Amino acid sequence: MTTTSQRSIKTQCKDAYEASSELSTLSTQVKNDALLDMADAIRNNIPTILEANQRDIENGIQNGLSTALVDRLKLNEERMMGVATSVEEIAALKDPIGETLTGWKQPNGLEISKVRVPLGVISIIYEARPNVTVDAISLAIKTGNAIVLRGSSSAYESNKALSDVMRSAAEKAGVPGKAIQLLDDTSREGVQTLIKMDDYLNLVIPRGGAGLIQSVVKNATVPAIETGVGNCHVYVDKDADLEKALPLVINAKTHRPSVCNSAESLLIHQDVAETFLPQCLQALSDAGVEIRGCEKTLALFPPAKAVTDEDYYTEFLDLFLSVKVVSSLDGALEHIKTYGSHHSEAIVSENVTSIQSFIDHVDAAAVLVNASTRFTDGGVFGFGAEMGISTQKTHARGPMGLPELTSYKYIVKGDGHIR
Amino acid sequence: MTTTSQRSIKTQCKDAYEASSELSTLSTQVKNDALLDMADAIRNNIPTILEANQRDIENGIQNGLSTALVDRLKLNEERMMGVATSVEEIAALKDPIGETLTGWKQPNGLEISKVRVPLGVISIIYEARPNVTVDAISLAIKTGNAIVLRGSSSAYESNKALSDVMRSAAEKAGVPGKAIQLLDDTSREGVQTLIKMDDYLNLVIPRGGAGLIQSVVKNATVPAIETGVGNCHVYVDKDADLEKALPLVINAKTHRPSVCNSAESLLIHQDVAETFLPQCLQALSDAGVEIRGCEKTLALFPPAKAVTDEDYYTEFLDLFLSVKVVSSLDGALEHIKTYGSHHSEAIVSENVTSIQSFIDHVDAAAVLVNASTRFTDGGVFGFGAEMGISTQKTHARGPMGLPELTSYKYIVKGDGHIR
Repeated sequence: MTTTSQRSIKTQCKDAYEASSELSTLSTQVKNDALLDMADAIRNNIPTILEANQRDIENGIQNGLSTALVDRLKLNEERMMGVATSVEEIAALKDPIGETLTGWKQPNGLEISKVRVPLGVISIIYEARPNVTVDAISLAIKTGNAIVLRGSSSAYESNKALSDVMRSAAEKAGVPGKAIQLLDDTSREGVQTLIKMDDYLNLVIPRGGAGLIQSVVKNATVPAIETGVGNCHVYVDKDADLEKALPLVINAKTHRPSVCNSAESLLIHQDVAETFLPQCLQALSDAGVEIRGCEKTLALFPPAKAVTDEDYYTEFLDLFLSVKVVSSLDGALEHIKTYGSHHSEAIVSENVTSIQSFIDHVDAAAVLVNASTRFTDGGVFGFGAEMGISTQKTHARGPMGLPELTSYKYIVKGDGHIR
Repeated sequence: MTTTSQRSIKTQCKDAYEASSELSTLSTQVKNDALLDMADAIRNNIPTILEANQRDIENGIQNGLSTALVDRLKLNEERMMGVATSVEEIAALKDPIGETLTGWKQPNGLEISKVRVPLGVISIIYEARPNVTVDAISLAIKTGNAIVLRGSSSAYESNKALSDVMRSAAEKAGVPGKAIQLLDDTSREGVQTLIKMDDYLNLVIPRGGAGLIQSVVKNATVPAIETGVGNCHVYVDKDADLEKALPLVINAKTHRPSVCNSAESLLIHQDVAETFLPQCLQALSDAGVEIRGCEKTLALFPPAKAVTDEDYYTEFLDLFLSVKVVSSLDGALEHIKTYGSHHSEAIVSENVTSIQSFIDHVDAAAVLVNASTRFTDGGVFGFGAEMGISTQKTHARGPMGLPELTSYKYIVKGDGHIR
């Protein structure tokens, strides 16, 4: 934004906070109408949005952004139409706000109910993906929350165009415009300021690399949700059906290697390693995956490179796979406990006891049995939308849909009751 | 404890973490048997516990602890019997762990279920109330969580005796003893170390003064729950039934002034101030309450002292009450928004519209309608137990019972499913 002076992070957070009270009481109708109008507005303003995006692209190229990142940043008419449709899909979801979660009458006549309410103000810190701007605004408005967006500086023009278009449509539909705040300040230091705005923010969700997420979780005074780092394992048990295991491992690794629910590590029981590994690793290798294996793996598949401890800790998000032969299910559990990121862990086995032990002892948001790790996803789970995947245990775990963006309050009705 | 060397906070947190995996898979039977055995062990060891308590009392008197604090610290046989019974009551509650919260089958045949699991390791930081040691251990074991207790140094001997007795009984019943850790290090700096043990702890709950709670919430890298600060208001609307309002205000203020759900502030609509205030404030004054009022209050009740802005912010936890005459419901809402602590807010009114507006706009864990703020309590709500009252909106809000000490995981079962 070049025409107005930069607002401070505090000003923008405070504005969002001020709007949140009104937002929390908007009717479902007003919120849904606003969302449908926002979708239309995106469609009607595609040229403006793409122009802004083009400025980001040019800046990115000038600043030496990698081709992969420029590709991720790039919008086109088709993507914009898809994004507008996703806003309409969010409008069509059930409004969670106002739902009575439970209610009861006490013997003394007091009526107690627990009713779902918005969190208040949500902030999201994210990488250069302008579609996240649209998703986050839509999910926030749907759940009656104000939102403070801290997008990447390299996507600022695109984010600005999108949020301006959406805010303008929302305002006309009766949603307070201040509820949608795209931070002008996209400096690195700004993140540290943002995550300490506990007077105004109720939740901060960092999305992006492990470094950012750890920095936010460790330094935030605003409640934060750890998201998305997925150092996911597939464990092929001695009692696995290897005909199921082969396509499953390949799918978990290669279907979309850049996302958090892809597998980064294969653990295999020693009893089936000789039968399974050479064939499986050859297939992965043929698909372009670089194999980094333990000594036993190297013996069975000589083209592999030697794995390091750091490899075991790494979420590659790329065509690399660490491989370890384990002597037992317990060995696999121990490895996952040491190196896993509590995201998604899969077992391939036909043995009911082994499966139950894996389910009980693996400490992860999702435990998958004879299914690819790729299934941990709000869309796949049928949530209709996703604000990220939580890898912590408080507030929300796993894919976060609409209910995970809410809180509740107790309403206690009496007739002059005293204790 | 003087006979063993002091273990470090890290060692004790790590021990709890190591025990948490085994603890999470204990059967309901084992956990309940352990709780019943712990209750018996408390009853059978009352002399030992009271001796330890006597050492704390003597140290406290030597160190100049106030009479009120010494009284709070003091245990006796009757209290111990009551505490043992409360452990049995917790044993009798339904085990939340393993409960399937929801489950469904996807069109592709994948079966997804959401199952309640323990959080892992919970830590609680609390004041010199030895009964909290017993409550916290019992609630943790019941919910399959390991617990790290950071009690007050002035209650160390009592806490040590209680936790030793309970741990020993738990171990005999098949619960890993390391799951129950009373920190040897009760230094003030130790709190700062404890709240950064995010490698081992899943949740920290600070209980005590506002200063401690804010320090923990601001500095913790472990997810923390803000508890207990209750700057609670009673708003007497212009359409209040004043015959209900009078006992309600008196109850909210004087029933148990030292606890968080007591009222600290009275807001009254100007239309009924002249009728209601003199009588109400006289009654409160007769009950020993010091009134600190706004100018209009002073005019109607001259014995009051002039209120300060700081008074409005203060959780007195004592026989003081700030009083403000407001010109409208909105004035009351604005005041609560500025000064409230999101705990419990009450309205006295017969006007359905005013009541609904109060419910909608007050941002608090509990909104009470024609009922005393004193009703916000896990026991009163029928939770059977309470680990504190959350005043934040993420994870848990309001009284925290057993479910609030749990998380969940998704279990996804396929038959070789790939995307």
